[in-house]
Amino acid sequence: MTDSPVSSGIARLATADAGFEARLSSLLAWEGVSDAAVQQRVDEIIEAVRRRGDAALVEASNRFDRLSATTMAELTLSAERLRQAYDGLPAAQREALAQAAERIRLYHERQKPESWHYTEADGSVLGQQVMPLDRAGIYVPGGKAAYPSSVLMNAIPAHVAGVREIIMVVPTPDGVLNELVLAAAHLAGVDRVFTVGGAQAVAALAYGTETVPRVDKIVGPGNIYVATAKRAVFGQVGIDMIAGPSEILVVSDGGTAPEWLAMDLFSQAEHDEDAQAILVSWDAAHLDAVEAAIDRLLPTLEREAIVRESLARRGALIECASREEAMALINRIAPEHLELSVANPEGWLPEIRHAGAIFMGRYTAEALGDYCAGPNHVLPTSGTARFSSPLGVYDFQKRSSIIHCSAEGASTLGKVASVLARGESLTAHARSAEYRIKE
Amino acid sequence: MTDSPVSSGIARLATADAGFEARLSSLLAWEGVSDAAVQQRVDEIIEAVRRRGDAALVEASNRFDRLSATTMAELTLSAERLRQAYDGLPAAQREALAQAAERIRLYHERQKPESWHYTEADGSVLGQQVMPLDRAGIYVPGGKAAYPSSVLMNAIPAHVAGVREIIMVVPTPDGVLNELVLAAAHLAGVDRVFTVGGAQAVAALAYGTETVPRVDKIVGPGNIYVATAKRAVFGQVGIDMIAGPSEILVVSDGGTAPEWLAMDLFSQAEHDEDAQAILVSWDAAHLDAVEAAIDRLLPTLEREAIVRESLARRGALIECASREEAMALINRIAPEHLELSVANPEGWLPEIRHAGAIFMGRYTAEALGDYCAGPNHVLPTSGTARFSSPLGVYDFQKRSSIIHCSAEGASTLGKVASVLARGESLTAHARSAEYRIKE
Repeated sequence: MTDSPVSSGIARLATADAGFEARLSSLLAWEGVSDAAVQQRVDEIIEAVRRRGDAALVEASNRFDRLSATTMAELTLSAERLRQAYDGLPAAQREALAQAAERIRLYHERQKPESWHYTEADGSVLGQQVMPLDRAGIYVPGGKAAYPSSVLMNAIPAHVAGVREIIMVVPTPDGVLNELVLAAAHLAGVDRVFTVGGAQAVAALAYGTETVPRVDKIVGPGNIYVATAKRAVFGQVGIDMIAGPSEILVVSDGGTAPEWLAMDLFSQAEHDEDAQAILVSWDAAHLDAVEAAIDRLLPTLEREAIVRESLARRGALIECASREEAMALINRIAPEHLELSVANPEGWLPEIRHAGAIFMGRYTAEALGDYCAGPNHVLPTSGTARFSSPLGVYDFQKRSSIIHCSAEGASTLGKVASVLARGESLTAHARSAEYRIKE
Repeated sequence: MTDSPVSSGIARLATADAGFEARLSSLLAWEGVSDAAVQQRVDEIIEAVRRRGDAALVEASNRFDRLSATTMAELTLSAERLRQAYDGLPAAQREALAQAAERIRLYHERQKPESWHYTEADGSVLGQQVMPLDRAGIYVPGGKAAYPSSVLMNAIPAHVAGVREIIMVVPTPDGVLNELVLAAAHLAGVDRVFTVGGAQAVAALAYGTETVPRVDKIVGPGNIYVATAKRAVFGQVGIDMIAGPSEILVVSDGGTAPEWLAMDLFSQAEHDEDAQAILVSWDAAHLDAVEAAIDRLLPTLEREAIVRESLARRGALIECASREEAMALINRIAPEHLELSVANPEGWLPEIRHAGAIFMGRYTAEALGDYCAGPNHVLPTSGTARFSSPLGVYDFQKRSSIIHCSAEGASTLGKVASVLARGESLTAHARSAEYRIKE
């Protein structure tokens, strides 16, 4: 008997295979649609919180998180409590968290859009004024997915944007608080924390209760109840994208150590069983070497079981014919994370139309971006990079158009508006414009 | 008997009234929520179009728009047909439309965000790449709300953004085509038009059919079926805000002619019975004069009946105590359109936190902005200016984060990432980062 490791079960595909496109489509398919039962429970929870405020919020929290609170005061954490959590961390963690926060802040400062305006020849002024939201709500999942890095990534852009008040909600199943999460909230500039979660927390943020102030936008990931509730309150408040499972597409030219690539794939797959890790290369021998490294390293992982399931269900090693085919796959998949483990990754950029974040070169492991490179780790999943962007400062600001016509400008524009308004049979529009036309 | 006109029935409020806040809240209240029956019909239509494509799309169009098409070819208009519509317009309309399109284009060119990056001391590069969407879908309502100006306002930002293909859908109830709408589509750079509407058009754009290509984002207003369908497909594609009725808040210092202000209010109220027109002033005699002008001018309006109903149901003349109270009302209401009919409107800008578009000074009638000033007329309604922005070039682009670590940079960041990843028990993340740490 040999000591050879158990195969990972990761799919091996080639673009030349018959049925490749169908295989790929089914591999990528993901629908986080909530069924009618979830929808109805969420609607009931939202209605209860809207109608009965704090009382309903406390009841739902007791029920779903197995607590025994009597008032919202017991489910409220002060800024002082957050500072204590930060002060209480071991020095190495405190420093690493502070360094990450500082780098994230510096990157996001560059992202800040500015107000602008211009003056026309007739003296009219046109422009756009950029202002922060008054109040943002950050949803942070509790339990096993409570990540301090997510607190930094969601709250720092809001803080940089100039949001007046940042409210965080985080459920505490069985009353368990995560000190790292609270410390991150302190660093990121969170003003108040309520230890509530689920659809009830989303409802409280959207409509306000006696204790929880109504916010203008809710961001942050959550389970199917949270996602369904966010979709339901969209319009009453702003929301960020509804996130699917996390995924990575790695493109390798064969020049990166197979162990490095295997570990990069694992770092995605270890999130949960639905996470997706795909490697593309035109070098078949290299794919063999990565597959062998996967089999060899898998048994050394703490989260081996999750990684095995995720790789077997949703992972793939894809052999393509050329750099051009790899590029086509990138734009077809529109990955959340794209790792370009190639020589001269800059040369690839102009052709990449869809990707949440692009990690360039052999040294830029996705994990560096997840924690501390600076750019946001909240990224569009499941192909939504086709139309959406990383979470950013721009998500916590909004614009107002500025129009200031001179007497001269109003007269000129009034003539055009009059013709068009009459073409639409909106004659009060026309007459309002015509009043401003000079003799 | 005197010849005095019938009173408009517009509400007269004062901030000093007992119960003012409650009156204002009920006046502003608007919920465009779809009931369960609408939801179910929309779900069925979406499912049918997803499953049976063109066939279901043709069936639904025949049924809801009273057509008798047999194939999608009969519901497709070519770019050539759009050009014909433009060429066929009377010269005055053709010129006014072209001038409006040109001004809208110039304004939106200024709005284009640029890609950016910076290099750190250790040679690492961070940045953000901005790219257009591949394909955008513009929904244009048919029937009485078919506005060529809306075609310009929705399609031009997409064109300026560099969207590769712009698809427009517009229902043609009883087969009636609006030549002005088609001409506007020609000017705005629309590539293809399908004469379909309702939830079936939204479903076709979101999922694609044999004839209608799948788009990446759907924008444009529609009735409750369209709004419900947009909410349902959100995530599969991007969508713009779900719009409520149009509204204006005019603030006057008493120095603008009462007739001008009356007509500005009418120009909002004439849209439909749910539209909202509110005037605020600290000059009670001036409010009296505007009210008299309203009563006097109302009988001269083509759309008198609509305006009367809209003013009686949702309009108001509000007397406040001071400029400060007027400012508080602006930020409380977060109006779609804000007209500052005051001396020195610039002085007001820094304090205005929430407004879709700000029309400054006595000459800047909202109607000028609706058609041809340049800024977009698709604006956040029902207080959503608290968290959202005018439609813009940025709605048709998305960003990708750029991270390119040098060997040196990866080593430094790897140490920080390792500590944080281990703090989150994500050890494959930690090991992926650690591979990049130098000895």
